[in-house]
Amino acid sequence: MVQGDVPYGLISAAAVAIREGLIDWAGAEADLPDTYADWDRQDLEGRLLTPALIDCHTHLVFGGDRAREFEMRLNGASYEELARAGGGIVSTVSATRAASEQELVASALPRLDALIAEGITTVEIKSGYGLDREAELTMLRAARRLGQMRPVTVITTFLGAHAVPPEYTGRAGAYLQEVCLPTLRAAHDEGLVDAVDGFCENIAFSPAEIEQVFACAQELGLPVKLHAEQLSRQGGTALAARYGALSVDHLEYANAADAAAMAEAGSVATILPGAYYTIRETQAPPITLFRDHGVPMALATDCNPGSSPMTSLLMAMNMGCTLFRMTPEETLAGVTCHAAQALGLSDRGRIAAGLRADLAIWNVSRPAELSYRIGFNPLHARIFEGRP
Amino acid sequence: MVQGDVPYGLISAAAVAIREGLIDWAGAEADLPDTYADWDRQDLEGRLLTPALIDCHTHLVFGGDRAREFEMRLNGASYEELARAGGGIVSTVSATRAASEQELVASALPRLDALIAEGITTVEIKSGYGLDREAELTMLRAARRLGQMRPVTVITTFLGAHAVPPEYTGRAGAYLQEVCLPTLRAAHDEGLVDAVDGFCENIAFSPAEIEQVFACAQELGLPVKLHAEQLSRQGGTALAARYGALSVDHLEYANAADAAAMAEAGSVATILPGAYYTIRETQAPPITLFRDHGVPMALATDCNPGSSPMTSLLMAMNMGCTLFRMTPEETLAGVTCHAAQALGLSDRGRIAAGLRADLAIWNVSRPAELSYRIGFNPLHARIFEGRP
Ligand SMILES: [Zn+2]
Ligand SMILES: [Zn+2]
Repeated sequence: MVQGDVPYGLISAAAVAIREGLIDWAGAEADLPDTYADWDRQDLEGRLLTPALIDCHTHLVFGGDRAREFEMRLNGASYEELARAGGGIVSTVSATRAASEQELVASALPRLDALIAEGITTVEIKSGYGLDREAELTMLRAARRLGQMRPVTVITTFLGAHAVPPEYTGRAGAYLQEVCLPTLRAAHDEGLVDAVDGFCENIAFSPAEIEQVFACAQELGLPVKLHAEQLSRQGGTALAARYGALSVDHLEYANAADAAAMAEAGSVATILPGAYYTIRETQAPPITLFRDHGVPMALATDCNPGSSPMTSLLMAMNMGCTLFRMTPEETLAGVTCHAAQALGLSDRGRIAAGLRADLAIWNVSRPAELSYRIGFNPLHARIFEGRP
Repeated sequence: MVQGDVPYGLISAAAVAIREGLIDWAGAEADLPDTYADWDRQDLEGRLLTPALIDCHTHLVFGGDRAREFEMRLNGASYEELARAGGGIVSTVSATRAASEQELVASALPRLDALIAEGITTVEIKSGYGLDREAELTMLRAARRLGQMRPVTVITTFLGAHAVPPEYTGRAGAYLQEVCLPTLRAAHDEGLVDAVDGFCENIAFSPAEIEQVFACAQELGLPVKLHAEQLSRQGGTALAARYGALSVDHLEYANAADAAAMAEAGSVATILPGAYYTIRETQAPPITLFRDHGVPMALATDCNPGSSPMTSLLMAMNMGCTLFRMTPEETLAGVTCHAAQALGLSDRGRIAAGLRADLAIWNVSRPAELSYRIGFNPLHARIFEGRP
């Protein structure tokens, strides 16, 4: 259990009472009130019980894959050869636009199932590979559909400001006004948007451009978040903090002022080691600054076909420890309570009375084993809304 | 299929005939001889068929785990605090000595099952955490037992020269003469040893000490291999090459002369990215030198509780590409034909008539997907000796 002052809030002989999908009571078994005496019981035989895991930053829905580009690059292909072969995000945009909603769902399903197999019950899914009205809406509908097909909560994020599509090269402003913002409004009208995101980077959108998207989100009453300071420091974090962002994500190049602004705004720092590892970044996000400023840290797969083709949140936890020196306790909080906070969800991510009974039961003897091992899934069972 | 001149030796519409656990014929379906016309057929529906995977370097059998030490280090424990808590290889030696054969088997089994789930049919398992006669023999018996409990071939390696046990601190020579070599002879008498290994490093054994072990192995007619040049260049590779080693493993600090010696001796370079990643090594093994000198490269998990708590050979393939810039084709050869060579096995690791029908069927459209993805297992089915 993750609560209280002891490490992890761990209770060594604990009991949890579940009623109608919610946690009715949680604490030391010795303190279990008599009112639960005649309830059905299940003995977990000493296994570790944690909140179910939450992957709060994914691009799980997309067309095609980028294995060919991955291989060409390793075989020594030049930038020109890769571009001629249609590499990069453009290839994913083409494949996504060419796919039907049904095809997007079918290709995302094995990725979602891999996450679920590791005890995940809540997953965020972003748009952002359509970059035109129809394809963005289709991506979001596919994300919603996935949430109906599996016992999992899907949180959708509109990421129209992910990249400037080829037909708008050099005209980012026009893309935002003519496509991105109208599509956001249409998606919101259709109930497809839980939050709004952007990619603030010299290869994507400037803070001033992102602010147009955030202003629209604010007008619609939608929370915002941002991919910021991943490859260079552009000032996206300060902007996001001004808009009270739920989270700021990546953050390799964030500095102390950014950490202070996030602490002030209550924004979560979402750490994405899969992308850092895959693109062979050398500057790690300033974990110590986030720790010192009291910025809660979430941890996610960033599952996407280019910079993080990762479908293991446990591996992200291991990378958080190994690459960024996060503690095992920080990584577990990063995929439970802080991940919930990054999604604006106060009904999950901890084990406490009144919260959803989304739980994970593990064949491990101590929580650190979840981040210590590489490529091993110790999940015994997953409970979603009180049901195994 | 991995053979021939085209990348991966891939045949796009292939057929494989299997009889009594062996490959009877393999090639393009169009060339399938008439003699197979009335055989039972199974349509793989366009899936990729490869040789089953081989993990040629593991320490899969051990007592305890090191999650506590992993956590203490990340929580900022000093070297003294870790030592006081009994950290390091010494803690694994204590836990291994305290475990029965049955307990060692029971704890290794989930790790072995994780490997099998990724299409592995042959796994090497080393001793080396016992470091006294009884515990070394028990480890090797546990390894053999694992091979009887699952449809998998276990190759055992005697690694008595893994570390100097606490009771011989400062007396490596005495440990070798009084314990290691007599235990090797006893283990060989009991049929427990397929190869002999050592750890040549300034924190372990010198080349001159390792040579005593190799001389004994040679006398017993056993092939040798070596952990060499992992943390510093000690000259172990040259020694191993002089003894015609099946493989030299780790090799971060090997140089051109080492690569030339290995090529001359026919030794495989076994690349272990899990350890490089976990200990945050910064010097990568000289892949380009091995490529240029024609040294075959194998790739393995190095599964062990300290420097590589990894049970995913697919993750090792991804790390080979991402961390060391190996090509996807090199990583697949590294876990099939070159891994077989590293174990001295000529009856597996390729798809060719007369070889064992140890095969893996994958839900992927191109071989590069096996190394491109992180934390996803696309195995459709595994075939061991012709049986699914
Ligand atoms: Zn992202
Ligand atoms: Zn090893």
